[in-house]
Amino acid sequence: MTSKITLFQHGTGAMIVPGLFDGTIDIQELLTHGDTGIGSGDGLDGESIINNGTPLLIRGDGSVTIADDHFTVPFVNAHFAAYSTINNIQINDFQSLGNYIFKHHQYQNILFSVKLHGQFEWVKTRSVFKQSKPYPSLVATAKSEKRFESQHLSGTVIAYYYPDAFSKFAVGGFHAHFISDDQSIGGHLMNFSGFNGDLGIQKFKKLDLELPIDNADYLNHDFKNDDIEAAINQAERES
Amino acid sequence: MTSKITLFQHGTGAMIVPGLFDGTIDIQELLTHGDTGIGSGDGLDGESIINNGTPLLIRGDGSVTIADDHFTVPFVNAHFAAYSTINNIQINDFQSLGNYIFKHHQYQNILFSVKLHGQFEWVKTRSVFKQSKPYPSLVATAKSEKRFESQHLSGTVIAYYYPDAFSKFAVGGFHAHFISDDQSIGGHLMNFSGFNGDLGIQKFKKLDLELPIDNADYLNHDFKNDDIEAAINQAERES
Repeated sequence: MTSKITLFQHGTGAMIVPGLFDGTIDIQELLTHGDTGIGSGDGLDGESIINNGTPLLIRGDGSVTIADDHFTVPFVNAHFAAYSTINNIQINDFQSLGNYIFKHHQYQNILFSVKLHGQFEWVKTRSVFKQSKPYPSLVATAKSEKRFESQHLSGTVIAYYYPDAFSKFAVGGFHAHFISDDQSIGGHLMNFSGFNGDLGIQKFKKLDLELPIDNADYLNHDFKNDDIEAAINQAERES
Repeated sequence: MTSKITLFQHGTGAMIVPGLFDGTIDIQELLTHGDTGIGSGDGLDGESIINNGTPLLIRGDGSVTIADDHFTVPFVNAHFAAYSTINNIQINDFQSLGNYIFKHHQYQNILFSVKLHGQFEWVKTRSVFKQSKPYPSLVATAKSEKRFESQHLSGTVIAYYYPDAFSKFAVGGFHAHFISDDQSIGGHLMNFSGFNGDLGIQKFKKLDLELPIDNADYLNHDFKNDDIEAAINQAERES
């Protein structure tokens, strides 16, 4: 079992940029690495979030289902939750969350996870539709993404922070997914406002990274002409 | 125990660039992660190589000693050797080694180790002297490095290859250290010619990365103004 100071990562952000979307780890195996996590889906079939051991998939049409044991994902993070939690905190928006954390913790250069659970005044998420081979690039896929908004709801944010030195193979900075308690809205978190609830932070000493070394498309790809960081930033940040 | 498909890394290349040279893992602990490896030394006190479970330190003056259990290193790779070996191969130089491997294996996007053992017509290595706090940068430290050459000798090269997506936190491409069988010359391998012997290759599926999260200098440092990749390239490649 992966320890509570270990963050598991399967796949890389660099893979996703040119369209290497094959799922290469299934949910059953993924759950051996954590009860908490966020990731993509096979062929970029939606956005996934594992909360308290339950793997949920938010598809391009916004529908939320429990991901099947055999569902596969190309790029995912997971860990076993052991958050240090502060209760009844107010956070204005996504930007303020980072400001708050770095004001109180010297975590700029380490890997950590953040979990928010409570009430939100407003949440904006997005998801993407399953693509077919030959897969388009990440930026082209993002053009057909759907965005979702909701007000006055309760829900959970699970996020990971990677220092900038990791920006080519993960998402540098924060990467967050959301699911509402009633599962009416979820996906990749673009922004939120007016959070009031519990903030959990869990820092890691180790990164356990697994590469899809049996995937022919991954082995064959020439990454030289992919501008990894620019594409991740374009696709991951709100425009 | 770390498995034979796992590469262990403690620290990052990004740390070394601005002079974060504190040793943060000792040899005793390091040997639990592998019987084979290469790394630096506390304060950049020489270049280290672990060969068949023996940790050797090649200091700035070229002297070779067995590293003490309590000797610490800031940045190191290790793994348990399980190489696939081709015997009696001829390789002209460092560049040809890469050409040979990528001609025969689709390993551009994966992590692997290379071990050469046999006869060399010529070998060029270098090592660095222990620095004192406040530590200079990597590039400044490299200015006082010593270079060593020898001809007609037998020895061992241990190298690791990281794909370019890892270039900010490790050494992208090949990073190799050398030790001669008689321990008369060793250190960071700059180049060689006329190799004739055994070539071992071991690929990894997993990277087990450990960050020095209890080191105050690491936590405090602002990496924003460090040009990590340029500095690593300048210090690691032969000028």
